[in-house]
Amino acid sequence: MIIDGLQCGHFDRAAFQALQAGKVGGVVVTCGFWEGAVESLDSLGRWRDLVRENADVAEIALTAADVKRIGESGKVAVILGYQNSNLFDGRIRFVEFFAELGVRVVQLTYNNQNELGGSCYEAEDSGLARFGKEVVREMNKAGILVDCSHVGDRTTLDAIEASSKPIAVTHANATALFEHKRNKSTDVLKALRETGGVIGCATYRNITGDFYCKTIENWCTMVAKTVEIAGIDSVAIGTDRSHNFTPPDYAWMRQGRWTRGVDYGAGSAAKPGKQPPPDWFHNVEDMQIIPNGLRSVGFSEEEVAKITHGNWLRLYGATFA
Amino acid sequence: MIIDGLQCGHFDRAAFQALQAGKVGGVVVTCGFWEGAVESLDSLGRWRDLVRENADVAEIALTAADVKRIGESGKVAVILGYQNSNLFDGRIRFVEFFAELGVRVVQLTYNNQNELGGSCYEAEDSGLARFGKEVVREMNKAGILVDCSHVGDRTTLDAIEASSKPIAVTHANATALFEHKRNKSTDVLKALRETGGVIGCATYRNITGDFYCKTIENWCTMVAKTVEIAGIDSVAIGTDRSHNFTPPDYAWMRQGRWTRGVDYGAGSAAKPGKQPPPDWFHNVEDMQIIPNGLRSVGFSEEEVAKITHGNWLRLYGATFA
Repeated sequence: MIIDGLQCGHFDRAAFQALQAGKVGGVVVTCGFWEGAVESLDSLGRWRDLVRENADVAEIALTAADVKRIGESGKVAVILGYQNSNLFDGRIRFVEFFAELGVRVVQLTYNNQNELGGSCYEAEDSGLARFGKEVVREMNKAGILVDCSHVGDRTTLDAIEASSKPIAVTHANATALFEHKRNKSTDVLKALRETGGVIGCATYRNITGDFYCKTIENWCTMVAKTVEIAGIDSVAIGTDRSHNFTPPDYAWMRQGRWTRGVDYGAGSAAKPGKQPPPDWFHNVEDMQIIPNGLRSVGFSEEEVAKITHGNWLRLYGATFA
Repeated sequence: MIIDGLQCGHFDRAAFQALQAGKVGGVVVTCGFWEGAVESLDSLGRWRDLVRENADVAEIALTAADVKRIGESGKVAVILGYQNSNLFDGRIRFVEFFAELGVRVVQLTYNNQNELGGSCYEAEDSGLARFGKEVVREMNKAGILVDCSHVGDRTTLDAIEASSKPIAVTHANATALFEHKRNKSTDVLKALRETGGVIGCATYRNITGDFYCKTIENWCTMVAKTVEIAGIDSVAIGTDRSHNFTPPDYAWMRQGRWTRGVDYGAGSAAKPGKQPPPDWFHNVEDMQIIPNGLRSVGFSEEEVAKITHGNWLRLYGATFA
């Protein structure tokens, strides 16, 4: 079984079936990027309907045990997540509401600074702000996993310290291996290692680089090097794959409503559009290439199990309500 | 005529009449602290009704010429302002909407960091963030005055640089004269001086201190010292007086919805509640004590005119739509 720490896009029955074919038993889905509370409730409603309509292939998971049971049954465990904390709309009391409604993973910031902390794309990372400290504590209580993937390194380190439970970087790579604003410093990786946190290694080309996208062995070598820094118990998979995304979706993810200008997100003026997936990973159905690749670069069965699902399951067990 | 750069509270007919009695011809009122777009529209609606119902004593001003005309007619010019940018709800396109609806002054942050920048109460001031740069530019275009009173010094300096028009610190004092997180550094005051910005000297005890609250001469000496730093064209009045505020209002201003804990705002555990007004300024009706006091510490008539209304009028002329 594989658990994917983060995917996004417009899921449909075909997407769930592709995940099934790839033996992906669990996936954190992105229910929102910039949306506020009411829009986020809309999204939760759509997700419930979608999963209900596809109950033979997918089920919403609320606990680590749910993820394991659903995944082992051959269905896809859907873990509801947001890539921003706008769903809380600045209200500390909304954290437990969204937890009760099934949300299990929330990223503190998306691409811009907010009331909680600094983003990786800001010129200056403020660290965890006053509201951020309140929200992290509340997420700990409510059973929502703190995600710092797009968060600035300084705020990430602050969040690791402020959180009474281990945190996740659901979809990023190590800066030491590929330099990109979205990737995480060695300090962050070591802090995850010390606190039982987990980083999901990404396959998104912009933050992975052409070399690691060239062959599965290259990518698995990147995972092995990440393990050297973060330890075998803190490295997992977070592909950052998207389903059915078209240019307007990228415009929404990058520009949202915050600018009338152009923002390239993880891309650049030279690479403005959707980047091709790794050469070895054209379809989500191909996901089993990853455990096989991990074996080929020398990981033991026990280690492959940790990277492909065990570490996420342990972290979910430690943090979900 | 006096123009007060900032007041807050639940205004009513008696409040307008008190302002009239004090010869306050213009005042920036606080239409919101934490409220999002829809709640801010609610507030605008209530303000329109209130002013309509009291059309014999108050009128909403949209331009500097309006303020002058209304004030000179003996009525109170109401300038619609917000002490936070939550009214924009993260939408760059909402800036011109609120400008069209009459909003003329918006503070970039209230007591907490947000998507725009850092607050004076945060451990770390991020400086003006990506969305903050967009909003400042948009406010410049739309004709809304940028207010940095509760904003951190670093973000304030960034905003002065980013803004194509002069900005305001509507209600604060000089840190050099009274040390408090809410007050402004000498660097900020000098930058206001160089760019045609204006600081409104406050009478709120927590940020003014007991000494300057003791006598009107003391307070006017503080103004004179502020003029020494910021220059005679950049110093005005921004009392920060409130109308009909009770403890639940302070709880809202300080805790809003962002914490279940206790926050003291400009106060402290030792001074948790509403602080008494200056000994010389028990009622808003007493406002004329200020021009008289300014004369008594040596300001000329021309200088008194600048401090009491001329500097605000010039700044409004340079920034309002």
